[in-house]
Amino acid sequence: MEAERGRRTGGAGARRRAAAAKPGAFPWRQLRNPYPPIEVLTPEQVEAIHEASLRVLEDFGLRILFDEARGLLRAAGAEVDDGSRRVRFDRGLVMEAVGKAPAAVRLHARNPAHDVEVGGDKLAFITVGGPPNASDLERGRRAGSLADFSDFIRLAQHFDVIHVANQPVEPVDVEPQVRHLETTLATLTLSDKVPFVFARGAQPVADAIEMVRIARGIDAERMAREPSLYTVINTNSPLQIDVPMARGIIDMARAGQLMILTPFTLAGAMAPVTLAGALVQQNAEALAGIALSQIANPGAPVGYGGFTSNVDMRSGAPAFGTPEYAKAALAGGQLARRYGLPYRSSNVTASNVADAQAAYESEMALWGALLGGTHLLMHGAGWLEGGLTASFEKFVLDVEMLQMMAAFFEEIEVTPETLALDALHEVGPGGHFFGAAHTMARYETAFYAPLVSDWRNFEAWQEAGGLDATRRAHRIYKQTLAAFEPPPMDPAVREALAAFVARRKAEGGAVLDGA
Amino acid sequence: MEAERGRRTGGAGARRRAAAAKPGAFPWRQLRNPYPPIEVLTPEQVEAIHEASLRVLEDFGLRILFDEARGLLRAAGAEVDDGSRRVRFDRGLVMEAVGKAPAAVRLHARNPAHDVEVGGDKLAFITVGGPPNASDLERGRRAGSLADFSDFIRLAQHFDVIHVANQPVEPVDVEPQVRHLETTLATLTLSDKVPFVFARGAQPVADAIEMVRIARGIDAERMAREPSLYTVINTNSPLQIDVPMARGIIDMARAGQLMILTPFTLAGAMAPVTLAGALVQQNAEALAGIALSQIANPGAPVGYGGFTSNVDMRSGAPAFGTPEYAKAALAGGQLARRYGLPYRSSNVTASNVADAQAAYESEMALWGALLGGTHLLMHGAGWLEGGLTASFEKFVLDVEMLQMMAAFFEEIEVTPETLALDALHEVGPGGHFFGAAHTMARYETAFYAPLVSDWRNFEAWQEAGGLDATRRAHRIYKQTLAAFEPPPMDPAVREALAAFVARRKAEGGAVLDGA
Repeated sequence: MEAERGRRTGGAGARRRAAAAKPGAFPWRQLRNPYPPIEVLTPEQVEAIHEASLRVLEDFGLRILFDEARGLLRAAGAEVDDGSRRVRFDRGLVMEAVGKAPAAVRLHARNPAHDVEVGGDKLAFITVGGPPNASDLERGRRAGSLADFSDFIRLAQHFDVIHVANQPVEPVDVEPQVRHLETTLATLTLSDKVPFVFARGAQPVADAIEMVRIARGIDAERMAREPSLYTVINTNSPLQIDVPMARGIIDMARAGQLMILTPFTLAGAMAPVTLAGALVQQNAEALAGIALSQIANPGAPVGYGGFTSNVDMRSGAPAFGTPEYAKAALAGGQLARRYGLPYRSSNVTASNVADAQAAYESEMALWGALLGGTHLLMHGAGWLEGGLTASFEKFVLDVEMLQMMAAFFEEIEVTPETLALDALHEVGPGGHFFGAAHTMARYETAFYAPLVSDWRNFEAWQEAGGLDATRRAHRIYKQTLAAFEPPPMDPAVREALAAFVARRKAEGGAVLDGA
Repeated sequence: MEAERGRRTGGAGARRRAAAAKPGAFPWRQLRNPYPPIEVLTPEQVEAIHEASLRVLEDFGLRILFDEARGLLRAAGAEVDDGSRRVRFDRGLVMEAVGKAPAAVRLHARNPAHDVEVGGDKLAFITVGGPPNASDLERGRRAGSLADFSDFIRLAQHFDVIHVANQPVEPVDVEPQVRHLETTLATLTLSDKVPFVFARGAQPVADAIEMVRIARGIDAERMAREPSLYTVINTNSPLQIDVPMARGIIDMARAGQLMILTPFTLAGAMAPVTLAGALVQQNAEALAGIALSQIANPGAPVGYGGFTSNVDMRSGAPAFGTPEYAKAALAGGQLARRYGLPYRSSNVTASNVADAQAAYESEMALWGALLGGTHLLMHGAGWLEGGLTASFEKFVLDVEMLQMMAAFFEEIEVTPETLALDALHEVGPGGHFFGAAHTMARYETAFYAPLVSDWRNFEAWQEAGGLDATRRAHRIYKQTLAAFEPPPMDPAVREALAAFVARRKAEGGAVLDGA
């Protein structure tokens, strides 16, 4: 692949060649957010939510269904009732444990050029994760397959504004016991970016960790030191953690891999109808899960996930990318910073189709998430229909929106040259800057060059077929897949991965929690 | 009209009835932006741009084509060359004049309930202004007509998130000499919100001011004290002000009406290719025009307009809602605050159709404008195709986006009740908040209720026709127009307006500058 070869030779020339090989796509770059976050809560309001969430943990506690987790928490000093499986957390215990979590994480990819820093002013974008359905304009909406999964991974590999992979769609055509083997294999062979694993039991997590270790060609000790894959733990809101989730917290912590604790606190359904109340619950659940991880393995890498949205109070349907979502995303960032934790948020919409609603809801979510200081943006590309569908057209539209945000994060350069007094003098009143020397020296890289946006005049656009952005996105995803070549992989590594998968399949795959 | 009657009876019950009469629409409300603006420039960078723009005014100056303007400026101490028509401004002269402009303006509508405050943390949204074409899904794109103009004004009147009218489309079926009479008459009779006038000569401006005075039923003296209509002055960038624009600055200032000075500084075309350089030019032109207004009438109401965007360097086509646009909108706010002036920005896109691109470009523009501290958002609803078309579907999509931003500006309420510890206790682990007392007491007003967004599940949405957001917006605009009733107007006032228009038409209408 041209881009790969370009990247490997290094240097600015190579970066330009790499960019040229991916028309409309940003070259790989570790993103940095230079702007101070927007604060929708006053410091006093942040403390009020913090205090209330500690009271929740002390007074009501959480119900934790996994015996081993309750055992660990009891040993650490929590008040455990095995009958009700309720665990009450002393605030000192919680804050001491949470205080051991690192403020930043480096995620190691099998291609070291695709490592990403998460925390501080560094951030990374991730694909959509988890929808049961896939869709595109040609084939419509259907149950996700391994073929769809692989195609999304190819897009994630191609578009370098996507830094980290996820499981972009559920391949329901693969048996659940071996699904994690197929998805991890596809992610590791079609991409060289950091992969994801679902916490669906001890064995799937252990298998994925072993496969990533093989792909990176490192020993187990180094693997435990270098976070190289990640999971997301959704608490079973309100105030509950089930067996696979609690096990995932513990197993990922012990393996030194990144666990992002994300309560799904839908105000009016699984959380109080008030944003303040939903944030209290989000914070209580996040702190409890993160405390458990730090008790299992102090210093293990974690993220604070915010996923507070609201329901449509007329129908009970979940809504995303709402004004409330944007405010909660900003508030979540303030809470994560309160504890010095990396912050995870998402790019979401409830739209059933990759249309104007999908775009404006995603933008509300993106601005809330990114101006809120998000370090890991999940569901960055492809999420549709409240997470029930991964859309190929939405993926490409989202890549455009993410690239625009990445360009927005490049600061305005103010120097004697950019202030351009000479250019103004050269051009003078009523003149034109198009041919000016100041323009000619800069025009190639002066502005963001779009992927999907069509800036031609109406007549030229109509002449070219008059396609709307969604139809243009369809073309782009098809063309990208047609031209795709996987990143290089040592044949011995490929063979070792295949052998591991074959052996584990022969053994019947994994026992799943709750399956 | 039900909403009107409701509003007139006053009180919270009336407001609820008014909201109920306009399904999906926000009730009228003076908006307030509670969040500190995002600063993309450091204070030092703001000063560097300020300094450079004063050097432009001192060293190069502006070419000002209107003799009376040069005369006023010479008398005030500027260095004027009548041969080249170049005017050089001493920085002391500029800063003293700009310092006389008020920091905030109250715009008076013929319905006092529709007055708006502009400045400080108060802001207002305005329709699209000026496109030569109108479009909708049914009739396609066509030259704008007075019928289209009137329909857009009806929508502007109906949707109360729109605070101020503009000339939403150019009625090219009306003779230019009488066009201002017809547009002002339509705006004043179909709406009771603050109207706009184009500065196309002395007579059109005087006619519009007189018609607004008649509609408000006040005397000339009071009219001069109470800004009741407004214009936008676009400098003829770079560094030039033509006859109608310079005349408009002077005439509106002397009449005490709001003038918004907005250089259209398209980086790479009419302005330097660097954002810093384009902002220097924007600032120099804005300061010069505002200084002229204050020299004509110290204390006259003005706004600082930012309209810096960039061209597509591949084609030279103007681009809008780009990352550069968002950054320039934020920087423009910092500059306006530097001078203590109300700030005007815009909601823009280059898309040729009301699609996902139109939505994500508008959102980039909206977040840049509104988080940048915009006080007057122009082109708030209906702008398409870089301003060449006013779209009915885009108008409705924009109303949704504006309403979402208005809801975003409602702060998170943090009180013992909203922190919801009792609700968490009531519901408990694994429960559901839908029927909780805490929820029931709040569900009707807890969240933003959308106008266009469809949050139903895929099956229900498909069952209902599977319309995308643009098609739903089409239905909404049609339904809104079908149900429209104009706001009440005293028959004597209506008659006086009609008589004025008839007389001025009989006189042949207005002599236009440059026509």
